[in-house]
Amino acid sequence: MTESHIIAALKEIVGADKVSTEQADRICYSYDATQQKFLPDVVVHPTTTEQISRIMRLANAEKTPVFPRGAGSGFSGGSLPTKGGIVLTTEQMDQILEIDEENLVAVVQPGVVTEQFQQAVEKVGLFYPPDPASLKFSTLGGNVAECAGGPRCVKYGVTKDYILGLEVVTPTGDVITTGGPTMKGVVGYDLTKLMCGSEGTLGIMTKIVIKLLPLPEGKKTMLVLFDSIDGAAQAVSAIVRNKIIPTTLEFMDGRTLDCVRQATSLQVPEAARAVLIIEVDGDLEFLDKQARKIAEIIQPLGVVETRIAETHEESEEIWQIRRSVSASLRKVNPDKFNEDICVPRSKVPEMIRKIDVIAETYSIPIVNFGHAGDGNIHVNIMIDKQVPGELEKAEKAIEEVFKGALSLGGTMSGEHGVGIAKAAYIPLEITPETALYMKTIKKALDPNNILNPGKIFLD
Amino acid sequence: MTESHIIAALKEIVGADKVSTEQADRICYSYDATQQKFLPDVVVHPTTTEQISRIMRLANAEKTPVFPRGAGSGFSGGSLPTKGGIVLTTEQMDQILEIDEENLVAVVQPGVVTEQFQQAVEKVGLFYPPDPASLKFSTLGGNVAECAGGPRCVKYGVTKDYILGLEVVTPTGDVITTGGPTMKGVVGYDLTKLMCGSEGTLGIMTKIVIKLLPLPEGKKTMLVLFDSIDGAAQAVSAIVRNKIIPTTLEFMDGRTLDCVRQATSLQVPEAARAVLIIEVDGDLEFLDKQARKIAEIIQPLGVVETRIAETHEESEEIWQIRRSVSASLRKVNPDKFNEDICVPRSKVPEMIRKIDVIAETYSIPIVNFGHAGDGNIHVNIMIDKQVPGELEKAEKAIEEVFKGALSLGGTMSGEHGVGIAKAAYIPLEITPETALYMKTIKKALDPNNILNPGKIFLD
Repeated sequence: MTESHIIAALKEIVGADKVSTEQADRICYSYDATQQKFLPDVVVHPTTTEQISRIMRLANAEKTPVFPRGAGSGFSGGSLPTKGGIVLTTEQMDQILEIDEENLVAVVQPGVVTEQFQQAVEKVGLFYPPDPASLKFSTLGGNVAECAGGPRCVKYGVTKDYILGLEVVTPTGDVITTGGPTMKGVVGYDLTKLMCGSEGTLGIMTKIVIKLLPLPEGKKTMLVLFDSIDGAAQAVSAIVRNKIIPTTLEFMDGRTLDCVRQATSLQVPEAARAVLIIEVDGDLEFLDKQARKIAEIIQPLGVVETRIAETHEESEEIWQIRRSVSASLRKVNPDKFNEDICVPRSKVPEMIRKIDVIAETYSIPIVNFGHAGDGNIHVNIMIDKQVPGELEKAEKAIEEVFKGALSLGGTMSGEHGVGIAKAAYIPLEITPETALYMKTIKKALDPNNILNPGKIFLD
Repeated sequence: MTESHIIAALKEIVGADKVSTEQADRICYSYDATQQKFLPDVVVHPTTTEQISRIMRLANAEKTPVFPRGAGSGFSGGSLPTKGGIVLTTEQMDQILEIDEENLVAVVQPGVVTEQFQQAVEKVGLFYPPDPASLKFSTLGGNVAECAGGPRCVKYGVTKDYILGLEVVTPTGDVITTGGPTMKGVVGYDLTKLMCGSEGTLGIMTKIVIKLLPLPEGKKTMLVLFDSIDGAAQAVSAIVRNKIIPTTLEFMDGRTLDCVRQATSLQVPEAARAVLIIEVDGDLEFLDKQARKIAEIIQPLGVVETRIAETHEESEEIWQIRRSVSASLRKVNPDKFNEDICVPRSKVPEMIRKIDVIAETYSIPIVNFGHAGDGNIHVNIMIDKQVPGELEKAEKAIEEVFKGALSLGGTMSGEHGVGIAKAAYIPLEITPETALYMKTIKKALDPNNILNPGKIFLD
């Protein structure tokens, strides 16, 4: 339990109204999207860089762990206060500081909600591509810490590809600046990218410099129904092999489709056993040509039906299907493990076949959907934790899924991160030497192991 | 001087024919494009990862510094053996190991020459965008170590944007793998990007996994002559402000034009005082439209003449002008300091005005050209070192140029790196706290300061 003099010092730093030790507040900050719970001793809402710096110095002096947190929407437990201590939330640092229309650069505080930022830049004809499913509530700080992805990453890359610079409070309380508003910069080590995806273990972001793009003139959304999962998976390879990188190449298997069918008013022929949602964007004249070419390429692969949205509303209807997936899945089983392996694109069919075998072996429903265009498959292992033995089966199945992805040159996580959810599996993917290199960096920068301890690596 | 038992051990590791202590060989590996010279004690040509690992273990045991080297074409002294010791060149590790056409990924050894790699992937309809001016001889390993840029980076980004994974020998001789062939991956810290631009101080790359793009269908090159430098600089801002990101936006000032005029057969009206070379690429039908739009945007800004290449040969003629710049400059003065500051794009006109003032203050010709599209200006400070006092004036002018760029939110280097050339100026750009964070990483990973010591930071 964090002692009273520490609480008093925190109140002195941020003001009494920004510190809470109330049970109700602590519960609010005890969980994330993994549904695991760890009660912090105290929740702090700093509003300035200087306050965060002072909190980190205090934490080091007192050897009290600090767990930085955005919206707590992560899927791997990266923000969970696993050792009690201080939850430091950046929610109240939520200002868009600048949108520089001449240089296509923005500067924000970490607590800005992703969708609100996207809307703000789109208003002036600019574009921030990363679009994690959580964008309505997740924060840009959290997105950077976990290196969030999303459907549009097929064409546009992930969060880190848009981060030019940062202001960061280090684990020991120094304030550093990395990168800056220029498109290039090679003076010193690239700490900006090191920070991206470091899951809040190497520093706390207090300012984020973001690269923007011109907003594409238009987009075209297609819903393509296939008679087999294999056809859809092959279509992904075929499109890329034809040197086309669409904006999105989202995929849902037959079981996902069944769930969505039950939960929504979606009318889909029974013959459809897989879906691809394909979107292209860019110059208006160019869109039709590209959509036609894609339709042509995939036609021989068992296409049951192709629907091309002609209006913005029709496009939104198609996306509504994709967005309803997560909620729909609960129909299969109450509990799910949402993994997000990533394999080379051409290996998607093989990976899907491997998952089918695993599902059969362990008699567990596994539902697959996700960003097939970059080989990033969301593998949902559906169980009922109340049923004895189900949890153990799920854990074995997850390990098999990870091993399968790694055997195809893939990774255990494309966008969710390691956190605590995958920390035990790290040795499957990272050699002891590579892990040592990473841990050496962490240990040197955070000698007291104060900042988000126990994440990524168990020890 | 490296002792004879170390030489013997090196011969045992790589074979006697791959180790040289001959004066002639040592001289060959004593310099880079900065024209500074430091004689190594021994030059080693390893051919395998394991050999490099053993060399690093030996170097640590013997406390002998190791200086990794690609083609030695760097502009900042990153590969110079400033403390004698071992030059470790990766020239003989020059194999393209794989071009995966289905997944748009290649795997290469570090010694592959950049242009040869580009040609190999273009043969199969793929595209590796980074195009440093040194591409005919520089190696991909060197490009990654320095995070090389080039004209096409305006649209396509720099070297690091194409590096998905690495095999690296650490400063202590471990072999680690970072990233991999997938488009996404968030398991552990992003060591791949940390290694990019770390100037050979954090590890020696032995394998590089590269992301490729589909080769654009076509391109269109335009040479635009302006009546003033200000008009050309404003044109860059105007194009970007209109939400167009061309493939290249290369710029040359009047003095550069004068040099090129003298050295080549280029016919240019006297009224032309600045040039932009603008290239767009992509879908064939789209190119004309985009070129027309650009011509329209920039017309009011003092355009003297616009030449649009209609054939590949005409495009090459335009690029030949750009490529002849470096050689032509020698006409002004025999010695030049080639700096490569980078400022936010909209600040290019202001930066050019600042440089004019500096040139006047110190009575030194300063010639500017470069990648205006991303604000990356090659500032060439032209002197004759034989003339007493010229070198000192140049040094002062360089510092003023750096300060000017930094005052506009820029950086001292967009693509050349720090090496030894800019190490003394580091405190102008990087705060002591940020430098400490970087040096803490280096110190932890290279406790004996064996790998490329004295680069980036003087101490």
